[in-house]
Amino acid sequence: MTALYVSLSRLRVPDERAPDLVRAFRRRARLVEEAEGFVDLQVWQADKDPGEFIMVSRWRDREAFKAYMKSERHRISHARIDPDLDRVIRLERLEHLHTYEVVAE
Amino acid sequence: MTALYVSLSRLRVPDERAPDLVRAFRRRARLVEEAEGFVDLQVWQADKDPGEFIMVSRWRDREAFKAYMKSERHRISHARIDPDLDRVIRLERLEHLHTYEVVAE
Repeated sequence: MTALYVSLSRLRVPDERAPDLVRAFRRRARLVEEAEGFVDLQVWQADKDPGEFIMVSRWRDREAFKAYMKSERHRISHARIDPDLDRVIRLERLEHLHTYEVVAE
Repeated sequence: MTALYVSLSRLRVPDERAPDLVRAFRRRARLVEEAEGFVDLQVWQADKDPGEFIMVSRWRDREAFKAYMKSERHRISHARIDPDLDRVIRLERLEHLHTYEVVAE
């Protein structure tokens, strides 16, 4: 068993802005990769609802996640998002979970 | 970019059965690991709601997932769950998504 801290955010944009959000994620600064305790990040787009995204980040523990959220690194990453796009991104749900089992990775 | 197919199931059990579900996942047969197109499986337990679980499996594509769900392998895996436990597991939500980006794995 690997115990990790998981942050799962559900984001929504108007369908016509979905390609812009995908592009923004692909061009992201990747500053989070250097953060203490960062494990990995994935972004998923809903199969039948292109405006719905789930962003999952995994961390060594809750403290590592909280420290990153307060960091300059996080501020810079967020500031790079096009303001026009940022304005239409809705955070629909935010969940914090513990991983109970990670297998076959 | 790695494009994958992601199946995300939200499960609920009464809080007092949560340890049984964790145990069942840890003792699972691991037959899925041999399935064609299987990438990985994770099971998460909610931080502040011990009866809530998210099971995420990732697949090469939708076809691989569908083939597994119809397979004897899947039937055997499911049949191993204690019927007393199986009866109290509620599937609250099932989502199928495409991965848009997988980084730092």
